[in-house]
Amino acid sequence: MRHSPSAQIIDFRGNLFLVDCGEGVQVGLCRSKIPVGKIGHILISHLHGDHCLGLVGLISSLGLGQRTGDIVIHAHPDAERIFRPLFDFFCPNLSMNVVFEPIDTTRHTVIYEDHALKISSIPLHHRMPCCGFLFEEKPRDRHLLIDRCEELGIPFAYFQGIKKGSDWTDPENGKVVPNELLTSDPTPSKKYAYCSDTLYAESIVPLIQGADLLYHEATYEHKDAAKARDRGHSTALQAATIAKMAGVKKLVIGHFSAQYLTDEQEKPLLEEAKSVFPNTVLANERLVLEV
Amino acid sequence: MRHSPSAQIIDFRGNLFLVDCGEGVQVGLCRSKIPVGKIGHILISHLHGDHCLGLVGLISSLGLGQRTGDIVIHAHPDAERIFRPLFDFFCPNLSMNVVFEPIDTTRHTVIYEDHALKISSIPLHHRMPCCGFLFEEKPRDRHLLIDRCEELGIPFAYFQGIKKGSDWTDPENGKVVPNELLTSDPTPSKKYAYCSDTLYAESIVPLIQGADLLYHEATYEHKDAAKARDRGHSTALQAATIAKMAGVKKLVIGHFSAQYLTDEQEKPLLEEAKSVFPNTVLANERLVLEV
Repeated sequence: MRHSPSAQIIDFRGNLFLVDCGEGVQVGLCRSKIPVGKIGHILISHLHGDHCLGLVGLISSLGLGQRTGDIVIHAHPDAERIFRPLFDFFCPNLSMNVVFEPIDTTRHTVIYEDHALKISSIPLHHRMPCCGFLFEEKPRDRHLLIDRCEELGIPFAYFQGIKKGSDWTDPENGKVVPNELLTSDPTPSKKYAYCSDTLYAESIVPLIQGADLLYHEATYEHKDAAKARDRGHSTALQAATIAKMAGVKKLVIGHFSAQYLTDEQEKPLLEEAKSVFPNTVLANERLVLEV
Repeated sequence: MRHSPSAQIIDFRGNLFLVDCGEGVQVGLCRSKIPVGKIGHILISHLHGDHCLGLVGLISSLGLGQRTGDIVIHAHPDAERIFRPLFDFFCPNLSMNVVFEPIDTTRHTVIYEDHALKISSIPLHHRMPCCGFLFEEKPRDRHLLIDRCEELGIPFAYFQGIKKGSDWTDPENGKVVPNELLTSDPTPSKKYAYCSDTLYAESIVPLIQGADLLYHEATYEHKDAAKARDRGHSTALQAATIAKMAGVKKLVIGHFSAQYLTDEQEKPLLEEAKSVFPNTVLANERLVLEV
């Protein structure tokens, strides 16, 4: 095994979400200087060991500190039956509660939502129930054309409504100024899709359409497509095909088989993906991408 | 956390024994190129997560290969209750059997023995039932003084018995040649003691007397002796005191608290230990020592 098991941190405006939690995550996170105390939600794609065996160690570490806010683990309903007894045994005096939120991995459904972010499941096809995760930033406010507003003498108190899309009605003469004259389009909202582990599945394309970034597993080269299919995995070519069909902006491939032992041996995976989708990069333990 | 959780490989003439199995062991072992397939026995000192949470991942990896020989896990009786369901869930198709052998951590007792090696438990004092492990090579054969034996015309068939200590009786004249004229002393047998996690406990001194190598935990500097005692740990000074009292040849200290963040910060632990027992070294992930 060349790479550590799966884990990604999604930093959304300072709130951290951990996606999958393979063995060794607590050590990796500590070494990376990521402020683990800011992890509020952990999303587990499926209950294979390489995606969740780091949970006990991580929860144990988090619960040694001053943290009091809940940790929410979103995972297949079996997760609580498996992990609750382990938390009880190995982490008996946690400073916070651990809450399990079951995911129906067979449906595209919202699993987390706040004022600015929505996370939904992406049903995947693997050897066991499994889903990916779609992070969608909610539409941002429109940009105020501040000079125009001041020319029209619009009071400051109305600015928030105008940024949300309201027109302006001058109270003195009843004249309506349409919103598009007062604002410009907002900064586009960002969209990130995590798809691992999965067979090649075109069913996910509509869900991840236009994503700024797609992480898609690419366990094998396409010459091993039969092996990939048997084991519920994808090839680099298949990952790139999904990226192209979905018109995403950038593709990260990862979850490479242990048969790829060196950087050199991983190159064909990248070349294969790039032949279909040029803006592809290889995942590694230290990859940091801005969306 | 600066260091990976606890794990040591004891290579005894090519047979590998794993002592403790903290999270991430499978990745660490693979990267170290240690032939993990040669691990037959795993010894777990106690059931704190940092000493056993790597078991599921390791067993899963071992059981993916061609391995068919049993893996024996020697651990507190609770281990099977905790880990068997995890092996069943996460490693359902192992190529080998996993056997649990319960250890009575309160007694100094033999837990493994073959023609050349004996491993026994060392009762320790920690916050939960815990024991160390004493590896003792059995007495080796005496060295044959081959020229002397040939001068006396001793047939080859008798050599094995003479190496085991037999005298030689000349069948022609009944004259007895005592063994000490036919052999010299054997290569001294080696002895290694692993003591973690534990309070300062002089009760272990007779058991580890004269060991070639002692690994003793040293979680804190002695200025934190009260904290060490509260948490069932030792200080570097205490580890060195045990080494000195037991007259061991070399001491390795490890299991440093996460409060020591750099090589520089660990130096005082070494200096403190060396002030009492000069032949001390600091453990790290890559330390390899010949006994």
